[in-house]
Amino acid sequence: MSVPGHRPPYYLGIDLGGTNIKSGVVDDAGRPISFVSRPTHSEQGPAQGMRALAEAGREAVSESGLTLADIKAVGLGSPGTLDLHEGLLLDPPNLPGWTNLPIRQILSEALHKPTVLQNDANAAAYGEYWVGAGRDTQSLVMFTLGTGIGGGIIEHGRIIEGRHSAGAECGHIIIQMENARQCTCGGYGHLEAYASATSLVKRAIEALDSGEESSLRLMHSEGTLTARSIDLAAQAGDSLAMRLMRETAHYLAVGAVTLMQVIDPDIVLFGGGMIAAGPQFLEQIRAGVKAMAFPVPAARTRIEYAALGSDAGFIGAAGCARMKYPAE
Amino acid sequence: MSVPGHRPPYYLGIDLGGTNIKSGVVDDAGRPISFVSRPTHSEQGPAQGMRALAEAGREAVSESGLTLADIKAVGLGSPGTLDLHEGLLLDPPNLPGWTNLPIRQILSEALHKPTVLQNDANAAAYGEYWVGAGRDTQSLVMFTLGTGIGGGIIEHGRIIEGRHSAGAECGHIIIQMENARQCTCGGYGHLEAYASATSLVKRAIEALDSGEESSLRLMHSEGTLTARSIDLAAQAGDSLAMRLMRETAHYLAVGAVTLMQVIDPDIVLFGGGMIAAGPQFLEQIRAGVKAMAFPVPAARTRIEYAALGSDAGFIGAAGCARMKYPAE
Repeated sequence: MSVPGHRPPYYLGIDLGGTNIKSGVVDDAGRPISFVSRPTHSEQGPAQGMRALAEAGREAVSESGLTLADIKAVGLGSPGTLDLHEGLLLDPPNLPGWTNLPIRQILSEALHKPTVLQNDANAAAYGEYWVGAGRDTQSLVMFTLGTGIGGGIIEHGRIIEGRHSAGAECGHIIIQMENARQCTCGGYGHLEAYASATSLVKRAIEALDSGEESSLRLMHSEGTLTARSIDLAAQAGDSLAMRLMRETAHYLAVGAVTLMQVIDPDIVLFGGGMIAAGPQFLEQIRAGVKAMAFPVPAARTRIEYAALGSDAGFIGAAGCARMKYPAE
Repeated sequence: MSVPGHRPPYYLGIDLGGTNIKSGVVDDAGRPISFVSRPTHSEQGPAQGMRALAEAGREAVSESGLTLADIKAVGLGSPGTLDLHEGLLLDPPNLPGWTNLPIRQILSEALHKPTVLQNDANAAAYGEYWVGAGRDTQSLVMFTLGTGIGGGIIEHGRIIEGRHSAGAECGHIIIQMENARQCTCGGYGHLEAYASATSLVKRAIEALDSGEESSLRLMHSEGTLTARSIDLAAQAGDSLAMRLMRETAHYLAVGAVTLMQVIDPDIVLFGGGMIAAGPQFLEQIRAGVKAMAFPVPAARTRIEYAALGSDAGFIGAAGCARMKYPAE
């Protein structure tokens, strides 16, 4: 069967998150045909979770007007830690109890389809590379800014997965050695410990505790202090909030420069919830990069926001399936 | 013509340095057949320099008992800045005046051979990957520790050259943001500003200036304070020298960990003059990596010294020629 206006073969992409499973059918040109989202209910354990994962896939296929027989392959993006080579979910902090799970094989057997497993941040980066903000590039570095900071690197069409499935952990590069902040992973001085949404809120509270005056104080006492509310306060002219956002942009620029010195990509992308901060925040990151990078990359490397939003995950996962099982 | 015990085709590798040109013929298995070294005389300008480069190549071929007709292709490793795509030497600090030189084309026309241009540190990393300390690996990160810190990254057989020929500048990742040391490149907080031989001497002088007692003081007044003499003083038990070497190892471990978070290679290599510091220095780097990296890479990623010494450059350059012009 085929879908008018969409180029076969068709791929099923599934983005497994701690809260929701997003899935959709994507055509050979990277255009989504269907999209469904359902809760992961990770607390119900991996057996139930694997059934939900397969069900989410079947729903997306049904929604597209196709049947599983029309699907060439399945791509699954999953939070880590993973063993990509063996197709294992090892010990994911966001899916407690889902340990040492042969997730690729289970999903493949449930759907009777060849299945590709990829790290969720790598899949999102690949989605942007395939049909998003990096679609005209050869190499791309992406930072996904959320509670933590994820990363994905595409170099001449290849995802840098790493020998131990631990490549492109761009949130965990060390940007500060002395008096360094501790990261949620336990390490010290990581980019994530400075520039994640969690860190932004933490730094705001530190500033309030040290006595700084700010409209953030009321939010803090009311329990509504979030990265988003700090950003809105900055846009409304609150000077502490403005400084915190500027510092965050600086930290991200430091991280971008280090990745530029290592990978020297065509484009550095920032995705995730924090890009709601808008064009001014992006301009601050760009200014930092221009000031710190080598002259040629500083002038030529594009620094942009990601374009696909939360669709990047399932589209990219489908793209990973397409990479391994291309049209004949 | 063929050389007994050596597998054709044969490649000519040339390693252009600010002081010397090293060249040799290398067989298809990465074994050197000949080696010659001659001064670059970069001060005599690029026209004379290009003649010396071609002459160095001819000498190496003659030394091998072959003729240029037996050489399949030429690989040239050159200090940057380069435009690898266009084959240009742009503005190399180590070869003043050799600017905007179509070095690949000039050498190719002088020797009448297909010629491949590569960054010298990338070529050295490729040499180690091909037949050196990384010969059994799929991916490798190499730091070359000298006056500055060079870098090379091989990922599944591909050199990460970068979009602007500025990839794998591992000495210029940012490891410190606050009160950061200035790098010779002008940037702040770069690994090179903390861990190069130049920085080691500078940090020793700072410590002496602050009044620390040490056997290094006499060396400093006699003008014999070098990275090597600091290392020897550390091995003789001088406590300041020991601390300086430990700190250097720590900085290098920080750099290695960041590269492991980004690339997650099979192996991280350290090459260049500073590895004369021997096994204890390497053990200090390893201990730092183990303490700071993620658990699986910390346990499994090999941290080693390079094996080819200064031969890595011309062997790797020959390997780059072989990559582009393989045996039929």
